[in-house]
This record gives sequence, C-alpha cells and structure tokens, in this order.
Amino acid sequence: MHVKRIRVVQDALDANATIARANRADFDRAGVAVVNFMSAPGSGKTALLERALERLERRADAPRVGVLEGDVQGRLDADRLARFHDVPVAQIDTDPGFGAECHLDANMVRSALPLLPLDDLDLLVIENVGNLVCPAEFRVGEDARVMACSVTEGEDKPLKYPLMFRTCDLVLVNKIDLLPHLEYDLPRFLENLQAVHPGVPWLAVSARTGEGIDAWCDWLVAIARRRAPAAVAPASAPAAP
Amino acid sequence: MHVKRIRVVQDALDANATIARANRADFDRAGVAVVNFMSAPGSGKTALLERALERLERRADAPRVGVLEGDVQGRLDADRLARFHDVPVAQIDTDPGFGAECHLDANMVRSALPLLPLDDLDLLVIENVGNLVCPAEFRVGEDARVMACSVTEGEDKPLKYPLMFRTCDLVLVNKIDLLPHLEYDLPRFLENLQAVHPGVPWLAVSARTGEGIDAWCDWLVAIARRRAPAAVAPASAPAAP
Repeated sequence: MHVKRIRVVQDALDANATIARANRADFDRAGVAVVNFMSAPGSGKTALLERALERLERRADAPRVGVLEGDVQGRLDADRLARFHDVPVAQIDTDPGFGAECHLDANMVRSALPLLPLDDLDLLVIENVGNLVCPAEFRVGEDARVMACSVTEGEDKPLKYPLMFRTCDLVLVNKIDLLPHLEYDLPRFLENLQAVHPGVPWLAVSARTGEGIDAWCDWLVAIARRRAPAAVAPASAPAAP
Repeated sequence: MHVKRIRVVQDALDANATIARANRADFDRAGVAVVNFMSAPGSGKTALLERALERLERRADAPRVGVLEGDVQGRLDADRLARFHDVPVAQIDTDPGFGAECHLDANMVRSALPLLPLDDLDLLVIENVGNLVCPAEFRVGEDARVMACSVTEGEDKPLKYPLMFRTCDLVLVNKIDLLPHLEYDLPRFLENLQAVHPGVPWLAVSARTGEGIDAWCDWLVAIARRRAPAAVAPASAPAAP
C-alpha cells in the first residue's frame, strides 16, 4: 500500500519530467534560454519584469525577450506588458472553472508554446502563478529559476518554504526602498536563505526606485548568452574605431 | 471520458466535504466557533493573531482561544504563539518529504483535532498555509473565513485570486501604516474587492501600530458568541453596581 502510493506520486512527477524534457528539446532547437520566475503573490514579479524590459530596450546587448504569463484568472499582467511592442506575450489561465491550479506545470507551458515565436527569441521569461509552494515542484524545461521575495514578507520565508528557495538560481530581494520603514532584518533573512541554499546569489532590488535593476538585467543577458547558438554569435567583434 | 474526469474531481471534493461535516459536528458538540485564517505568505497572519491574543488577554469578554497552525515545514509560527500560556497550539506540517501540500484540507485538520482540548475552547483559529489559491477550495468545517491582504501586495489581488476573496467573511487590510510610503490606491483595492465580493466587510489594520486590532478582536468575540451554547451563556448579566 505504502509502495503503491509512492508509485502514483512518482508517476505524476515522471509525466511532468517527460513533458519538461520535450519543452527543453524545443527550447534547445530554437536556441532560447528560459527563466522560470516565481514568488508569493504581490512580491513584484511583473513590476521587476517591466523595469528590466525598459532597461533592456536601451541596451545594445539586449536579448530578444518573450514572456509567458501564468495566472489563475484574467490577463492583468499580460496587459501591463502589452506596451513593450517588441515583446511577444502569451497568457496561460489555470482556472478552468472551479479547481484552479496554483502553479504552472510542464504540460501547461507546452500547450502555450505554439503561441510564441520561439525561433525569434533569445530569452523566454515564464512568470509563474504567485505561490511559494507548488510552482517549485514542477520543472517546465527552464534553464534557470529566479524568485522574488520582498522585504515586506518577513525574514522567515526561506525556513517556511525551503523547496522554493533551495531550487532557485537567483533571489531578488525586492522593495528594498521600504527598508527604512520596516523592522526587517536583512542579515537575518540572508542567514536563513544561506541555511537552506548555501551560496545562492541574491540582488537587492527595487522596482520603484530602480535600484539593482541593471544587475538584474546583466543576469538575464548572461543567461540568454549561455544559450545562444554558436552560429548566431558574431565570429569576431568589430574593433573599436 | 469527460464525464469521468468530472466525477473524479467531484469525488475528491465530496470526500473533503464529508470530512468537513464530521469536523463541524465535533465543533458543534464542543460549542467551539472556528475561523479559517488565510492569506498570501508574509501578509502578517501570525502577527495579527499575536496582537489579537494580547488584547483579548485584557478583555473580560474574551473567548477561550486555541490555535491550529498549518505550515509546509517547521514550527516557527507555533513557537511565536507559545508565550500565550493559556492558548493551546497544535501544529500541522503538510510536508511529508517531497510533495508538500500548499493548503490545509478537512482531513489534515481532523487529524490534528485530538491534540486540542476542544471542550475547553470557545474559539479555534486555524492559520492556513500562506497561499491565495488552494486553501480557498477546501472547507475544513469552519464557521467563518478571514483573510489578510497587506497593502504592499498591490490593488489587483482580488481580481487575480477571486475565489479566495469571494469566499471570505472578513478582509483584514494589513500593514496600513505603510500607506504613506507606497503608491497604493486603497479605494481601487476596495473597488476590486467589491467587484468580486459585494458587501464583504473589511478592516484597515496594522499589526505594528495596533490600528484596527480592537475591531478585529470585536469580530472574533462576536463569532465566538454566535456559537456559544445557550447552557453556558449567563441567564442574565449581573446589573452594574
């Protein structure tokens, strides 16, 4: 009985892993790097994405970015990104009536891929459903995971939601401009973060003031470059005049 | 095939409803009112509960309160409440290894009831896992649902997580002391809230400054009274001297 229950769970995760590998193969073929962007509701994922897209528009080394928006209902976030005319945006609603899914899985992402011009992208950012639990359990074929955690959420979150913090490749500590107005102990948060994920990189950022957004863009550019097919990269950079 | 899939979902929800009714029968027998307290991670549920328990300690009309803490992992919140010596606290960890549940359901609550002296309580507060999606889908036998939503989370949350806001009986708009430091449009939030749940009561509160905590206590006292068995209520209040 015990073994059987484990097998069922294993099968479900296996099915997701199989579809995630199919997604990954498609991303490889298109030469697109994929970032799975996660956080609690209201941590500022969309705002951080808006600020990054604004800066990238002015950078010569900017990758061609597409966005996949995952929400339970509605297209508020997708609408916020519509002003970036060069950024294709697709929307997944996880709510088929009652029984809304609280996360994206590999199959949901797969079903949305035909909506995006993968071959014309260098970087796909998948904005997951706001939730610190289940999104961490489902790989969708991504190259890297980023999570945002705002300073208004308290220092204990890595200890309470360890899987999310343990499986991400970058933590954006957002709303850092609010620090003077909070009793938030940043060193204690970082200690908790290091306890569950030793060595994970983090950036102090503010979607409002712009602090740390250049560094966040640098990280995105580096992820996109890591995936760029050699054929597309310039054989030699033109010498400076 | 389609019909079969619906039946499976229906069965799962039916199973939860059946167990929720059993919980409810136990609560009725003990004469205890039950509040299901929900929010996103970091909205301040535990802090709002701490402030309420502090105030209630000094009130003559205070109900005898117990707390059931739901977390993915750890007992940080339960430890924070340990200083209230008269408040029994039980902890549910939803994380049996990998595959942590992102919500409490009726069966998890049922499994924890033997840890609490229900007959000696007037009010049981169940602090759910921090998540705006799945907790709303699972009744646990509660009399009322309260949710906390902090002003740092943005005005759009009722539109993005409508089921949660639609099924709650009180909304605590927390961290109201931070309003001067945010571009948060409270009237717009309330408009969104009314759009998904017309007429739902709400309170502006701050666990930090204490604003609104008396009103939050009044609400808890009223819920506990509504459930108090007639035999326990005084036949007539003693006249003031």
